Amino acid sequence: MIPIISIVGKSDSGKTTLIEKLVPELTRRGYRVATVKHDIHGFEVDREGKDSWRHKQAGAHTVIISSPQKIALIRDVEKDSTLDEIRGRWIQDVDLILSEGYKKDVQPKIEVFRKEKHKKLLCTKKDNLVAIVSNQKFNVGVPCFHLEDMKGLSNFIEKEFLKSKKEKEVSLRIDGRPIPMTPFVKDFLTKTVKGMVSSLKGCKTSQRIDIRIEE
Amino acid sequence: MIPIISIVGKSDSGKTTLIEKLVPELTRRGYRVATVKHDIHGFEVDREGKDSWRHKQAGAHTVIISSPQKIALIRDVEKDSTLDEIRGRWIQDVDLILSEGYKKDVQPKIEVFRKEKHKKLLCTKKDNLVAIVSNQKFNVGVPCFHLEDMKGLSNFIEKEFLKSKKEKEVSLRIDGRPIPMTPFVKDFLTKTVKGMVSSLKGCKTSQRIDIRIEE
Repeated sequence: MIPIISIVGKSDSGKTTLIEKLVPELTRRGYRVATVKHDIHGFEVDREGKDSWRHKQAGAHTVIISSPQKIALIRDVEKDSTLDEIRGRWIQDVDLILSEGYKKDVQPKIEVFRKEKHKKLLCTKKDNLVAIVSNQKFNVGVPCFHLEDMKGLSNFIEKEFLKSKKEKEVSLRIDGRPIPMTPFVKDFLTKTVKGMVSSLKGCKTSQRIDIRIEE
Repeated sequence: MIPIISIVGKSDSGKTTLIEKLVPELTRRGYRVATVKHDIHGFEVDREGKDSWRHKQAGAHTVIISSPQKIALIRDVEKDSTLDEIRGRWIQDVDLILSEGYKKDVQPKIEVFRKEKHKKLLCTKKDNLVAIVSNQKFNVGVPCFHLEDMKGLSNFIEKEFLKSKKEKEVSLRIDGRPIPMTPFVKDFLTKTVKGMVSSLKGCKTSQRIDIRIEE
């Protein structure tokens, strides 16, 4: 499963600025990064007057723009998504997900804190705080990095989140809802599917198997 | 499988304008529509200076903006996608996909033609042309609708693409690549997976089953 770290902090603490400095350092080390921005007030991304903007204005539920270099998608949803739901449905081919915001989500958090702006930290270890980035030292049981120390912070992320042995992932969703499985059921499902698939032409080895059945 | 119709036509024939008129008529009839715009020259969708724009500029491979009403995604890809690939990976919860462009794709096509702008049709029945929308009559073996006749065009689309009995869909992808299956293999896979899943708690009935196995 792709690890998720949320960059949290009070308003104007420098969350976007931190992501802007952290992504190039991680990219330089050979990692691919996805970012997720939480926008509870709704947003406009497309540019007025463009064909795709006109499609959405006309009432399209989903609008996609596809080119040989990039793909963009805008679609309606019925409720706010958790980071886990976003990862499961929309993200693949990356090593790490950095989210901006999502302080109430369960994922591990790095808090940005500037002493000239704030009085108190937003999160504690109970909120799954794993590190602080600040121009002030804290002694709250998690590592603290200076605002400019992207090397130190990247070493920490690499060690704690990226070097861990990749877990096997087995998921089953019924009508989009994830079904919890015991290790026995996961093992049974994996062996059955792999056994079945291995007898098909051109399917001797595989990193990932996806099956969808719709009626 | 969600039906796809490509709206094709020469430059400046009014493809976007047709989509702008057609989507509200189909939506009024209770259908959800997705649109796909082909942009071979690359594009910019986000707005300069926004947090998500700054994430992408910093080198993020994928950027997502999530709100309770909408989700937007921008990501790098390695090659141009076919409409079938876009449908399989990115589109769900809609009844119809209208694409703008993709005249070389295999999907059914509706051509927009204006007699004051063009001399000759772009497509023939061999290109999977299924209808023409024009201010000129054509006798080429497919129905021809006037540029303003959204009712007639929607009736045609409804009859030919939306009222057909929904097909069962069974797909298997190995490392993202679709694996062709004979009807026997599809049936075998479906019955095995459904049998296995039905013995799990809370999985008695289902419209859709998704399984992912990664190592």
